[in-house]
Amino acid sequence: MTSEIQEKGQRAKAASYMLNIKTTCEKNEALKKIAEQLLIDQHDIMAENAKDLAQGEQQGIPASTLDRIMLNEERIAAMADAIHLLVSLNDPVGTIVEHIEKDNGLRIEKRIVPLGVIGMIYEARPNVTIDAATLSLKTGNAVILRGSSSAKFSNMALVASIHRALAKTSIPTDAVQLIEDTSRETAKELFHLKEYLDVLIPRGGKALIDLVVNEATVPVLETGAGNCHIYVDEMADYIKAEKICLNAKTQRPSVCNAAESLLIHQAWFKEHGVQLLTALHHAGVTIIGDEQVCQQFEAALPATADDYATEYLDLKISVKLVENVYEAIEHIQYFGTNHSEAIITEDQLTAETFLNNVDAAAVYHNASTRFTDGFEFGYGAEIGISTQKLHARGPMGLPALTSTKYVIHGNGQIRE
Amino acid sequence: MTSEIQEKGQRAKAASYMLNIKTTCEKNEALKKIAEQLLIDQHDIMAENAKDLAQGEQQGIPASTLDRIMLNEERIAAMADAIHLLVSLNDPVGTIVEHIEKDNGLRIEKRIVPLGVIGMIYEARPNVTIDAATLSLKTGNAVILRGSSSAKFSNMALVASIHRALAKTSIPTDAVQLIEDTSRETAKELFHLKEYLDVLIPRGGKALIDLVVNEATVPVLETGAGNCHIYVDEMADYIKAEKICLNAKTQRPSVCNAAESLLIHQAWFKEHGVQLLTALHHAGVTIIGDEQVCQQFEAALPATADDYATEYLDLKISVKLVENVYEAIEHIQYFGTNHSEAIITEDQLTAETFLNNVDAAAVYHNASTRFTDGFEFGYGAEIGISTQKLHARGPMGLPALTSTKYVIHGNGQIRE
Repeated sequence: MTSEIQEKGQRAKAASYMLNIKTTCEKNEALKKIAEQLLIDQHDIMAENAKDLAQGEQQGIPASTLDRIMLNEERIAAMADAIHLLVSLNDPVGTIVEHIEKDNGLRIEKRIVPLGVIGMIYEARPNVTIDAATLSLKTGNAVILRGSSSAKFSNMALVASIHRALAKTSIPTDAVQLIEDTSRETAKELFHLKEYLDVLIPRGGKALIDLVVNEATVPVLETGAGNCHIYVDEMADYIKAEKICLNAKTQRPSVCNAAESLLIHQAWFKEHGVQLLTALHHAGVTIIGDEQVCQQFEAALPATADDYATEYLDLKISVKLVENVYEAIEHIQYFGTNHSEAIITEDQLTAETFLNNVDAAAVYHNASTRFTDGFEFGYGAEIGISTQKLHARGPMGLPALTSTKYVIHGNGQIRE
Repeated sequence: MTSEIQEKGQRAKAASYMLNIKTTCEKNEALKKIAEQLLIDQHDIMAENAKDLAQGEQQGIPASTLDRIMLNEERIAAMADAIHLLVSLNDPVGTIVEHIEKDNGLRIEKRIVPLGVIGMIYEARPNVTIDAATLSLKTGNAVILRGSSSAKFSNMALVASIHRALAKTSIPTDAVQLIEDTSRETAKELFHLKEYLDVLIPRGGKALIDLVVNEATVPVLETGAGNCHIYVDEMADYIKAEKICLNAKTQRPSVCNAAESLLIHQAWFKEHGVQLLTALHHAGVTIIGDEQVCQQFEAALPATADDYATEYLDLKISVKLVENVYEAIEHIQYFGTNHSEAIITEDQLTAETFLNNVDAAAVYHNASTRFTDGFEFGYGAEIGISTQKLHARGPMGLPALTSTKYVIHGNGQIRE
């Protein structure tokens, strides 16, 4: 028997074959219609969103999570604006990235094509519903969305609005489908829907991502955790160090590109360490230090080995003294999650050593790790930040949602 | 306790950090030394290979498999030649593929870097040992090789020769490691060695690939099966059709880019069908046809639904009549494996319909599917042919063994 998920998969695959040959113009028209429809439907959407919020409050969901679920006129307007920005972006599909002419007359083109069907599995934030649907559409992909139960009514209202918009266009409504049943069973089925899904993208906490990576047989684009470090070198400029550490830790502690660990050169620490830690402490940051740090800085709490491996996502930072850049690199190689890593130094050679040897999606010299972001990089869109090395690494814009295809033109050539 | 596999993983990771910063010149020197050493050691290698062959004969391994295992002076010389060709190829590592200057003064570079540690799991052919080791080395990756028991002695001799060569260079011998224990347990451990492996590449039959795809938590580059079709359109030129069908089916039936299924337009079949099938039949090909084909062509055996899904890898072909290009596309979408698909037609519009709508790594107009190959495409090297859409699709040359990294140069920038 065909399950609901398999049936959605089938329909998404069929839709993807139709999307595959839509022009950029057709896709952009559909996107504009979606932006328009969201504004038309905003009161319905907010009414459904209120159900999620009421249910969440009843279930004692933390206020910070409820805030992520909450939709108001401003946030819906921001969604519509983001779609208009997306319309203005370049469509990568159809571009010929390689052209080979062989002596036997074969002409080989390598063309950018959509991935096909994208599975998106995510938590709380209903804006991911709109992001994933519109970025997929722009790149000619069908998408199957599986949000969390905490945003179920909001997601249903948003997808209903998308369907109303698509019904007015040449794009099939099956191009965007929501799995309404948010049980574990539907997630598991999605993990193994290899026949119809070309990729599965999880967005959410470490538990969700680990589950998907460990269970899925569908290829996964891992948007992983960020245990990001800042190494403050012997030759660090104090002003830059303080500014960057404060920004990377406190500007938005709950995100993956926030700093979680400070590695400080022994000699620099002697001179500036207490001043830097005091500044962080005054900004509300709890300092979790190694033995030396605790000796020098009273407010510090002692770090365990676990601390160095922890992504706090909170106003907390682990601090460890190191002898040199090599010890810093070794520590990062061991404890890092290959997300974003920074060095603060005025010594160009030490900076190069760090930038070349640290294995991460983004490595920074004298800048905050908070810049690892598709919008900050100027991509105009972001489907997530990849911490794996295959296919896409770092902030993923539209090209991450595409694949390639060789198109070969012959006139009877055979292989000798 | 650390197992042998974990320990090899650790050492490969450490080696990859050293390789990561080796120059193209250093890597090429090491490659040349390997080519040299293989020739020096050829008698040892052949003696060890003879053990595999003797054991294989005793175990009743088919002659065709034994031929794939067999090494002689000529084949070892060919390995050395392939390495010299590899030396001459462009090293993709270090290339800056994107350069972004932000208004705030940040300079963002996207650099090509090695993947890190590659796990290669393969069957029979000892030449994969050399291919995988040298392609990995050229791109700055460490590699863990896990061949099959049928080529165990050959693989050990080849890796010993590589180690002797590397010992004379600045490249650590841990860059190339062989898992000598070819039990299922070591394969399973490799599937989950996520801490150390950046990618796992299976090369072999469908059973091996399916096992890896279904079990591995390490990201996989799927080098899949090829159930390749040729659609002979109403407007096909007979000479081209016969030449291409014969080539795609018979030139080397055991490989993944050989044709396995013929879809023939009804009207064309009426005029030329028997002639084409007779030509194939005379070339030793067994015709497995649908009802109409069996009625018209006496030597045809009746096809079951399974036949259309089967990669024969043999002198056998399934033949089905279709009403038009759309039916052909639909059949391919259902039964194809997204490898290589061809249309034979003189009608440009029909060709475009086929090329745009068929979802495969390589789509051909009036040429043999046998061209899907890294060497034929002019890449000078090939680690396999990807049938997945993430990361690499089609013949994978050196770029498929690389990732990217954002390197960001600042002077104190923070995110507002």
